[in-house]
Amino acid sequence: MSDKTRVTVWNENWHEKHNEAVKKVYPTGIHNTIAKGLSQAADLEVRTATLDQPEHGLTAEVLAKTDVLTWWGHCKHGDVSDAVVDRVQKRVLEGMGLIVLHSGHYSKIFRRLMGTNCSLKWREAGEKERLWNIEPGHPITAGLGEYFELPNTEMYGERFDIPTPDKLIFISWFEGGEVFRSGCCWERGHGRVFYFRPGHETYPIYYNADVIRVLTNASRWAKPRVMLADNCPNSKPIEVIKDRSAEFGIAGIIQK
Amino acid sequence: MSDKTRVTVWNENWHEKHNEAVKKVYPTGIHNTIAKGLSQAADLEVRTATLDQPEHGLTAEVLAKTDVLTWWGHCKHGDVSDAVVDRVQKRVLEGMGLIVLHSGHYSKIFRRLMGTNCSLKWREAGEKERLWNIEPGHPITAGLGEYFELPNTEMYGERFDIPTPDKLIFISWFEGGEVFRSGCCWERGHGRVFYFRPGHETYPIYYNADVIRVLTNASRWAKPRVMLADNCPNSKPIEVIKDRSAEFGIAGIIQK
Amino acid sequence: MSDKTRVTVWNENWHEKHNEAVKKVYPTGIHNTIAKGLSQAADLEVRTATLDQPEHGLTAEVLAKTDVLTWWGHCKHGDVSDAVVDRVQKRVLEGMGLIVLHSGHYSKIFRRLMGTNCSLKWREAGEKERLWNIEPGHPITAGLGEYFELPNTEMYGERFDIPTPDKLIFISWFEGGEVFRSGCCWERGHGRVFYFRPGHETYPIYYNADVIRVLTNASRWAKPRVMLADNCPNSKPIEVIKDRSAEFGIAGIIQK
Amino acid sequence: MSDKTRVTVWNENWHEKHNEAVKKVYPTGIHNTIAKGLSQAADLEVRTATLDQPEHGLTAEVLAKTDVLTWWGHCKHGDVSDAVVDRVQKRVLEGMGLIVLHSGHYSKIFRRLMGTNCSLKWREAGEKERLWNIEPGHPITAGLGEYFELPNTEMYGERFDIPTPDKLIFISWFEGGEVFRSGCCWERGHGRVFYFRPGHETYPIYYNADVIRVLTNASRWAKPRVMLADNCPNSKPIEVIKDRSAEFGIAGIIQK
Repeated sequence: MSDKTRVTVWNENWHEKHNEAVKKVYPTGIHNTIAKGLSQAADLEVRTATLDQPEHGLTAEVLAKTDVLTWWGHCKHGDVSDAVVDRVQKRVLEGMGLIVLHSGHYSKIFRRLMGTNCSLKWREAGEKERLWNIEPGHPITAGLGEYFELPNTEMYGERFDIPTPDKLIFISWFEGGEVFRSGCCWERGHGRVFYFRPGHETYPIYYNADVIRVLTNASRWAKPRVMLADNCPNSKPIEVIKDRSAEFGIAGIIQK
Repeated sequence: MSDKTRVTVWNENWHEKHNEAVKKVYPTGIHNTIAKGLSQAADLEVRTATLDQPEHGLTAEVLAKTDVLTWWGHCKHGDVSDAVVDRVQKRVLEGMGLIVLHSGHYSKIFRRLMGTNCSLKWREAGEKERLWNIEPGHPITAGLGEYFELPNTEMYGERFDIPTPDKLIFISWFEGGEVFRSGCCWERGHGRVFYFRPGHETYPIYYNADVIRVLTNASRWAKPRVMLADNCPNSKPIEVIKDRSAEFGIAGIIQK
Repeated sequence: MSDKTRVTVWNENWHEKHNEAVKKVYPTGIHNTIAKGLSQAADLEVRTATLDQPEHGLTAEVLAKTDVLTWWGHCKHGDVSDAVVDRVQKRVLEGMGLIVLHSGHYSKIFRRLMGTNCSLKWREAGEKERLWNIEPGHPITAGLGEYFELPNTEMYGERFDIPTPDKLIFISWFEGGEVFRSGCCWERGHGRVFYFRPGHETYPIYYNADVIRVLTNASRWAKPRVMLADNCPNSKPIEVIKDRSAEFGIAGIIQK
Repeated sequence: MSDKTRVTVWNENWHEKHNEAVKKVYPTGIHNTIAKGLSQAADLEVRTATLDQPEHGLTAEVLAKTDVLTWWGHCKHGDVSDAVVDRVQKRVLEGMGLIVLHSGHYSKIFRRLMGTNCSLKWREAGEKERLWNIEPGHPITAGLGEYFELPNTEMYGERFDIPTPDKLIFISWFEGGEVFRSGCCWERGHGRVFYFRPGHETYPIYYNADVIRVLTNASRWAKPRVMLADNCPNSKPIEVIKDRSAEFGIAGIIQK
């Protein structure tokens, strides 16, 4: 058995097939570009999955072999089946890592795990973004400097409607005057969740070395530390106690 | 217009109609007992709603007049319609307070807002519980001492599968040997959420003065600080920037 | 007895006496400008205190009558006596609010309460700052819009070496390209602490209506919810237990 | 150069020399018992240091070779020199891990890093403690079950006056009726801090396999992810801006 971290790169893969500008930037799809970038790391074993595959490529078998799932979606969030979302959520709560990318902020799985709207401000003007690294000691920023820049990006601005992150990693500065919490960590169940803002189908973001470095680091950070199935057990007492349940007309201590 | 905090006490109200032991403890239903307790506070205006009412008593009109919703459910979680859960979640994210009681840990609305399984250990033996007040400066513990006790309760034990609370208020000690995070605060969207463990249909928990004090305090704490509708706006730049979108085949800055 | 929140505005008041440019902006001292701004709120009772007064104006008597202390210091942090810092820290941990302003990030009291260096990047170029309000539901942002601007400020940039705030309220955008966590909330002991970035002795920051609004809101938010003296008591058991201390050569349960 | 994590086990080592009961339990000192336990892990390189050594055994040279420092003190907290505390704090903020044990809650270094009183309730009755593992996915609990027990311990009870932990790992149940947050994680600067409650000089706690497992896991978790010296730099702008400082009589952009 391999010691590698098994990453599944998921993509709705729609713009790439229907929009000429996007085809030019990502001729084989965003997923393959990300997968190629991650594959440079010898400790990552990378596969891809897309919306149009059976069960969106996220069968129980695939998830069972996935340590970390990355998620890119935009205009087809509604086409993702609730059954697959249930399955992915269950696996995250058991311990799988999840990395949500850019417009994935509005995906079913991210909103499901956050419990909030996950809305934000946005603008498409190809403007400059500078991501400040506010946690230089965090594994996700390993090898990065104080900041890195993306010359052309879609803007995302606050307020980003998310629960307060356990750890805020990046804050973006935008040329047009906004700021954004661009790298956010949470734990849900036994799994780790990382939201990373950069992306967008029309800019060559996933060819950028710093972006790939962040995604590589995040894949390592998000890998399962444990895999535990959920349960809600009836428990016998550890200390000796008197069962007073009969007075209240209830079942009492169950002798399993 | 009243300055009172408008509390709606929701109950699935099933055990009270089908179980003789429960009928004896709560002859008019858990909701009416809680409502009576809360109504002792002159600044609270209290109504009730139950599962068997049209739209479970939680119509848009009722929610529009609700500052804080308390939630008791147990065996009928599955009967709560998703449309009503959507509506309650939307209202919480806009600013309404939500107080989830005891077995409500497994309600659709609580799991929706947490994003986790919300599972735990449990046992019905009528044992003693002592709730330690670990935040004596928090509004929810106003007027309480270092701890309070419930002579007979159902046990809930860790691990409680929730996101780390923003603030942990109570930790319970159980006679049988377990502990539990019994009072937990979160913010979701603009609303406040409080989970409070004590409850159960067969014990007279909601007649206890300390429990009513906590629920009264929590109603005050959870009342809306703001009510803001969600949006995800396209935003024009604040700074003067060059729109480079044409180079990338995209829409660019939208002149609304 | 008054129901007003009693605010003491503290200032090292040195630049104002030794620098002509500062004298022009704050002829009666930064403290008096802030005090005048806060005094517009009918529910605040405002006094001032300065470094050159006996015990820096923060005697036990003054602190006993102070609900919220605001702190401005810059080049004289080292002149603040440790005894006064001890006294202020003790009072915060008991429940008093503390609002730390701008260059106060390097004050003894702030570093004492944070436990970190509280260092940051800085630049004096009179550049524009835009503070984004990321918590529109928080009491500290009441009455503010999505952002507010300061036309000329000193820049503070990340990484700001602080413990992760309990709640992040403002993120600043700077003309020169940096970002900063400009409004941060923590609880320490029973007291609340708010750090607010804007300030600086050479810009008329404390005449700005939005800044005064934030400081007014923060004074209301930070006021004591409780005042509790610290203790570390030897406690008798609540449950009946056998004292096994003699086996270990120790004192055992003390019968007070 | 070794890839091992270098742990320095610090002990005030006073009870062991002055109290017959303690001598019997820890004839070579608590530090040597802990060091022996940790040394079972092949990836840890363990040394000890004690209060009575020059500079308490924590010279700049020793700290430079220390990845993780464990701290046991009780009645001699006041004898630890402030200069050594400064040095340890500086090293933690740069990235070194710190594990604070039992009565170390009142040590200068822990109070310095927390900013609070760190007080609690206590009782010496040799009673039973059960530590519930509420984060089975956390590296510190690797290999532990749902709980572990200590047959005879000193009781520590809430309220423990600490800042809300970033992550709460263990909650203790005590025979006498109290609860306690017994395993708490924080980050300060670039370093990680873990407080672990079990200990006490008169019980053979540090011979317990579960306790040693926790300390071993914590040593791995707390090891530096980065080592960064503090600075507070004057920064030149990244964007082209007009220096307006002259209007305000200030230094302006410094051309370093």
